[in-house]
Parts: sequence; structure tokens; C-alpha cells
Amino acid sequence: MIHPTAIVEKGAKIGQETKIWPFSYIMKGAKIGKNCNLGQNVFVEKGAKIGNYVRVHNNVSIYDGVVLDDYVFCGPGMIFTNELNPRAKKESEHIKTVVKEGASIGAGAVILCGKKLGKYCFVGAGAVVAEDVPDYAVVVGVPAKIVGWMCECGKGLQFEGGRAICRECSKKYSKKEKAVRLKK
Amino acid sequence: MIHPTAIVEKGAKIGQETKIWPFSYIMKGAKIGKNCNLGQNVFVEKGAKIGNYVRVHNNVSIYDGVVLDDYVFCGPGMIFTNELNPRAKKESEHIKTVVKEGASIGAGAVILCGKKLGKYCFVGAGAVVAEDVPDYAVVVGVPAKIVGWMCECGKGLQFEGGRAICRECSKKYSKKEKAVRLKK
Amino acid sequence: MIHPTAIVEKGAKIGQETKIWPFSYIMKGAKIGKNCNLGQNVFVEKGAKIGNYVRVHNNVSIYDGVVLDDYVFCGPGMIFTNELNPRAKKESEHIKTVVKEGASIGAGAVILCGKKLGKYCFVGAGAVVAEDVPDYAVVVGVPAKIVGWMCECGKGLQFEGGRAICRECSKKYSKKEKAVRLKK
Repeated sequence: MIHPTAIVEKGAKIGQETKIWPFSYIMKGAKIGKNCNLGQNVFVEKGAKIGNYVRVHNNVSIYDGVVLDDYVFCGPGMIFTNELNPRAKKESEHIKTVVKEGASIGAGAVILCGKKLGKYCFVGAGAVVAEDVPDYAVVVGVPAKIVGWMCECGKGLQFEGGRAICRECSKKYSKKEKAVRLKK
Repeated sequence: MIHPTAIVEKGAKIGQETKIWPFSYIMKGAKIGKNCNLGQNVFVEKGAKIGNYVRVHNNVSIYDGVVLDDYVFCGPGMIFTNELNPRAKKESEHIKTVVKEGASIGAGAVILCGKKLGKYCFVGAGAVVAEDVPDYAVVVGVPAKIVGWMCECGKGLQFEGGRAICRECSKKYSKKEKAVRLKK
Repeated sequence: MIHPTAIVEKGAKIGQETKIWPFSYIMKGAKIGKNCNLGQNVFVEKGAKIGNYVRVHNNVSIYDGVVLDDYVFCGPGMIFTNELNPRAKKESEHIKTVVKEGASIGAGAVILCGKKLGKYCFVGAGAVVAEDVPDYAVVVGVPAKIVGWMCECGKGLQFEGGRAICRECSKKYSKKEKAVRLKK
């Protein structure tokens, strides 16, 4: 299911059932898991690592140093960066950026390089992320600030006394300051 | 006037004199009117509907569920979304988004799905639209807020006592709260 | 070093050692200097002028009327616009936008047309630039505001009594109000 206009260099590793849309370019040295969906005009650089069941929308570039765990969602036109204080004269440094399992990044959001996005966090559309995002946190704005918390299923969570039950799927969570955990 | 690198699937409907630039992809089931101009790396999904005389700049994706009426302007890199609270595990829902006649959407703006953009409204560059936009309203910011009103010709309108005359083209408007109408 | 999927029209001028990545489109009448690097899905319109040693990241469109001097850095997905108050019915005007030597424009930033970005200024990721930016200024936010000053090397500058010495490269600067100069 790789579109004939997509370019996949020899030496790129792509898992089974992964779909790649038109005009995308996967460099050798890129690693992509199984059952992923990469949209139109996606770029995956050598050194980038993408897990399984990851959905990457149109016009997203995954640079060297970016690691996307399983079930990550990258909205259309969201942007990873790969340099801090870039100048044309400087070499790019490929600082590591990690996005943990199940995190969702909204359309047009920008993630400054070197940040860690926690498990199942949710970055709102158009947000500019300049700090690490805790697990399950919802962040919005420029620069992005925490405005709430979200269940793995996508429903907002209301904490009372450090506890929350999802009204959609009944998963239970505990919270101490900015540390939220799923109770098993 | 369809560039040879653009992909137009059989079953896509495209009106006369519509121009499509390089590396764009039009799926079968998409409907595009006449005299439109679709820039480089545009994507039009099955189920999307585009009217006549619509201008879509580079790097814009029109998803299933998006309806653009006649004379709509989509600035470069503006983004429609097609999911609320997206998670990689969920299916996308293709909620309907409607953009009425003559509306202009600025560069890099993000329109959350399910919203209605009124006639000849104007969304500023980089705005994130999370609420419906009234006819002729100008909205800017993250999230987008109403900051003024604009004539069909592109000139700002100054209301006094519920009335305004465009200083550029002399069109007359009336306004009650957020409801603006062109007087004929 | 022009990728075979990139389109370079006859009559486009491209300097030595300039690299162009996949799915980019350079129109005739465009002028690009030497030792530049233009990423994936870049567009350079007729009438656009790009100096030497310029780095243009993925998904950037350089329209007619845009002038980029030497050593300019355009981050991924940053957007130039080419119309003020655009309406689908109006013709685009191609107002001139000038980016001076060594300026850096962050990922996803939007530059409204007609603005001048000064030498070695720094536009933060996601900023929307609606005013001219002075030499060496750092601007962030929507709309973009000055929040500091930056050395040619990319290090932040701290002024005391109108003077600053870069702690990274020892370059010296003087400042009167918003006018910063490199001392030679």
C-alpha cells in the first residue's frame, strides 16, 4: 500500500500493512513500524524512529532524532523542529525529541526539538510546545500551557480529590500534582 | 491546466478552466467546480465539495466532510481538521465543516472540524478557529476572536448606529449584535 | 544535487552547489544563489529572489515579491503570504517582502507580506509577524512582539547601558532604543 509516487529509499525499514500516501519521501535509515498510516507529502529522515499503529497526517516531517512510540497521532501540518536557535551558518544538531505511546498532536502544532511528550497527552491545534508535556495532559496556546487532562479514549477527565473516572470508557486515573497515572 | 505531476483519480469531478498545480492529489469522489485554482501539494479527499471560483493556495488539504462554497479563498498552509479529540486508535469521523460564499481563510490558520464559517468572513493568518464565525466577521488569534468586520471587497467596515458604508466600494451593511447583512 | 522528482523550469537561475529536495518546484524567472539548500515540497515562484547559503526547510513557498538575502534560514512549514486582505475575487498583488542577511524564521511562523525582517533577527516558531522586525531582534507570539535580542551566532544578547558582548563568540553590539549594531 505504498503509493507509486512515494519515494522509499533502499535501507528504509517499513513494517507490514503500513500505508504511505502520494509524494512522501522515506530516507534510508528511517525505521517505521507496522500498521502505520503516513499521509501525503510526509518526510521521514534517516535516524527517525516510528513505532506501530502510528498515524501521520499530510505535510508532516519526522526528522532525525524524533522518536514516535506506538499509537502516536500527528495531525495535519504539525511541525517537528530539529534545531534550537537555528542560523543558516550553523550545522543542525538533531536533538532528540520523544513522543510517548498514544500521544496526539493537533493540526498545525509546533514541537520544539528536545522536548518529551508524555503518554496519551494531547497537544491542541496550533499550539507551540516549548516545555515537556506530562502524561495525559492537554496543552493549548502559544506557548502551550496545561488546560486539562484526557483519557486514553479521547474524553476529557475531571479530577476530584486526586481521582478521576472516564465517563466514556470507565478507565480510572490518579493524579498527584502533574503526575497522572492509569489505575489497573 | 492540470499539471502532469498532479494526480486526478478517475471519478473525480473537476469543472472547466480549473487549474491544478504540481504534486496535488484529487481523489475519486471529490467534486470541484469551474474556474478554481488549486496550488501545489493540495489534497482533495473523496466526499469533499468545492464550488466555483475557489482559490486554494499551496499545501492545503480539503478532507471528506469539508464544503467550500463559491469564491472561497484558502491561504497558503491553512489547515482543515477532520477529527475532534483525535487518537490513533479511533476511527476518524469526517464531521462536516462548511465555508460559505466568499469567505477568506488566512495563511496558516487552523479550522477545527464541525465549524461554520460565514459569508465573506475573514480569518486572520495563524488564527485557530474553535467557534463558528459570523458572516462578514474578522477573527484573529489563538483561539480566534472577532476583532472587526469586512466588506465583500476586502475593506474593513466601521459600523455606527448599526450601519456601515464601505469606503472602497460603497456597499451598505446593517448590523444587529453579531448579525451583519448586505443591503441590496 | 537536484532530486529527479523536483521540477526546475527552463529560465530559472540556480547557483552552484545548491541542493533541491524531492517534490519541489522552481518556476522560470526565479533566481536562487549558490550553496543553498531547499527542502522537500518547496515552491519558488517567478520573481522571487534568493541569495547565497540560504537554507529553506520543507514545505516553504517563496512567492513573487519575496527577497531573501544571503544566509537566511526558513524553518519547516514557515509561511510567506502574498496578499493583504485576500478575497478570491481580487487579483493578488505580490507586495514586496524583504528578509535581510542572516535572519532566521522559526518553524510554522507566518510573515505577512510587505514586511521587512532585519539582519540576523530571529522569528520564533509559530509567530505571526505583522510589523517590521529590527536587526538582531527576537520576536515571538501572535502577533509577534520583541522579547529580546540575538547574536549572529545564535546566542541571546543581554544589553547593559546600551552595550552587549556575546558570551559565546565575543562579538560586541551597541543599542539605541530598537536599533542594534554590530561593532567592528
